[in-house]
This record gives sequence, C-alpha cells and structure tokens, in this order.
Amino acid sequence: MGPEELKLTADEARRRFGTAAVARLATIGPDGRPHLVPVTFALDGDRIYTAVDAKPKTTANLRRLRNIDADPRVTLLADHYEDDWDRLWWARADGRAAILGRPAPPAGRPGGTDGREADLAGPLALLAARYPRYRAAPPAGPLIRIQVERWTGWAAGRP
Amino acid sequence: MGPEELKLTADEARRRFGTAAVARLATIGPDGRPHLVPVTFALDGDRIYTAVDAKPKTTANLRRLRNIDADPRVTLLADHYEDDWDRLWWARADGRAAILGRPAPPAGRPGGTDGREADLAGPLALLAARYPRYRAAPPAGPLIRIQVERWTGWAAGRP
Repeated sequence: MGPEELKLTADEARRRFGTAAVARLATIGPDGRPHLVPVTFALDGDRIYTAVDAKPKTTANLRRLRNIDADPRVTLLADHYEDDWDRLWWARADGRAAILGRPAPPAGRPGGTDGREADLAGPLALLAARYPRYRAAPPAGPLIRIQVERWTGWAAGRP
Repeated sequence: MGPEELKLTADEARRRFGTAAVARLATIGPDGRPHLVPVTFALDGDRIYTAVDAKPKTTANLRRLRNIDADPRVTLLADHYEDDWDRLWWARADGRAAILGRPAPPAGRPGGTDGREADLAGPLALLAARYPRYRAAPPAGPLIRIQVERWTGWAAGRP
C-alpha cells in the first residue's frame, strides 16, 4: 500500500495519526518477534496514551506490558483505507513506552504505585474526551505512555 | 482494546482475518525494532499474499523486504473498530515470509528469477479478485507470501 514515496512531514503524520480512532501497537516479544494489538489512544503533542482494559489480575500477565518492561521500544501505526486508493494514507510513530498507574507489586517491593498516580488524570481526561465508553467507565487497567521519537507517513494521490 | 480474554479459535481468527480489506504487517528491523506498514492481502488457507506496489528500483530498497531477507518472522493484524465496543474484534497471524517474483540481481548472481515466476499467477488472481485496482493494473513489485504458523484473535461481546 504505497511505495513509501511521497512521505508526509512529521507534522502532517502526527496530525493524521491524531484523527484515527484506532491504532496498532507493536511491541518486541521475548524472542524478538513483533507482537501486535489494536489500541484506542489519545494524542498530546508527541505523547500517545493508551489504556489497558483489563482487570489487575489479567494485567499482570498481559503480553504488551511484559514486552514493554523488557524493551520499551514500540511502534504504532494508524492508517486510512477505502476502495479509492487515491485516498489512502498511513502514519507511523516510533517511540518509547512507559507504564503508568500499575498496582504496587505484591511483595511490597519499592517502585510500585498505589494504583492511581496524580499524573493519570490528564491522560484519562484526554481518553474520555475521545471515547464515550471511557466517559461511562474509565479504563480498569494501567495506562501506557509513548514518547514519540519519530513520525513518518505516506499518502496516496497524484502529484 | 480487549483484555485478551474470550480468545477466538484459530479457525474463527482465520475466518475474520479474511474478511478485512487491510491488515498491518510487522517485520523486524535491523536494530530489533518492529516496522509496521498497512497491506492489502489475499488469504488462501494458511497462506497470506500481499503485493508490493513499487517500481523495481524502489523495491530493492524497501524496508519490509530488507527486513524479511534478514529475518522472515512476521506478524499481521486485522481488526474491526466501531463506536459500539461490543462489536470489536481482532485477528492476528504469526508466520514466516518469503519474497516471490523479485527481479534477478544485477550482477548475474544465481538465485534471482526473471521477474515473474509461474507460481505468481494464483496469488495474483486472488489479489485481483479482492481489489478492483489490481484488476485494472496488476501490482508492479514482488509478492510476499506468509506461511501462517499461528492464528489468534479476540472478540468483544457479553458472554
């Protein structure tokens, strides 16, 4: 889908990314294989926030979180598809992920948090503004914050 | 988007994957970082075919192809999004990629092909059957064939 010519500027890739309702998050698995899941998200400048909709017990074993713990480098992709291929575009974000608001480790080790940090309020408000479901019920799990280091993108169209 | 509960069977993940018009292909970059692009595709049992819409000169330097040459392990994701989150689903394919129909290497080294192999006809017909644009103009570049080793998936819905 596109010869990777006609690159978008970083600003234009960021702008288009922000219009998408869903993106795909790629993390690096323990064997080096990419792991992919779709994610809802909110964009704040060069930061992307996405929530984990899972109960704490499930969260502890969620693959994307384990992968980020082992290697914070992630890639996200948003794309637009329609039958008219002159209107296709995609935007990609390479960045580093951190996990916010994870429950404290059970053994009382240092480093955990008590469930919700004060700095979750802003990202949660951004997510709630985009998704009605989050207004009705805030996400149950932690948030992932991606600091984007590189925006790239492509759009079709006759030059 | 989904707590990874309610897993789909492999058959159901494959079936849903095949209904999508677009998927996202993750390859492994030289530094181990995932590389993501959207792709159109055709499904034939446990094989996924996707074409490279690029001129041969561009193709030689296309990142997804260089990545596959270095490590054939790929992951593809198809997903369905709508505002009613009870209708979300995604399907993921982990597999191994091979490149078909690549032009012969310039130095006359062995191993290249003369542009189009006979076994491209079937995959090209499958792609043309799905995408009108390919009926008007077959893809200019090589094909990627993914042999799927594992289908996984998730669907929302009240149990």
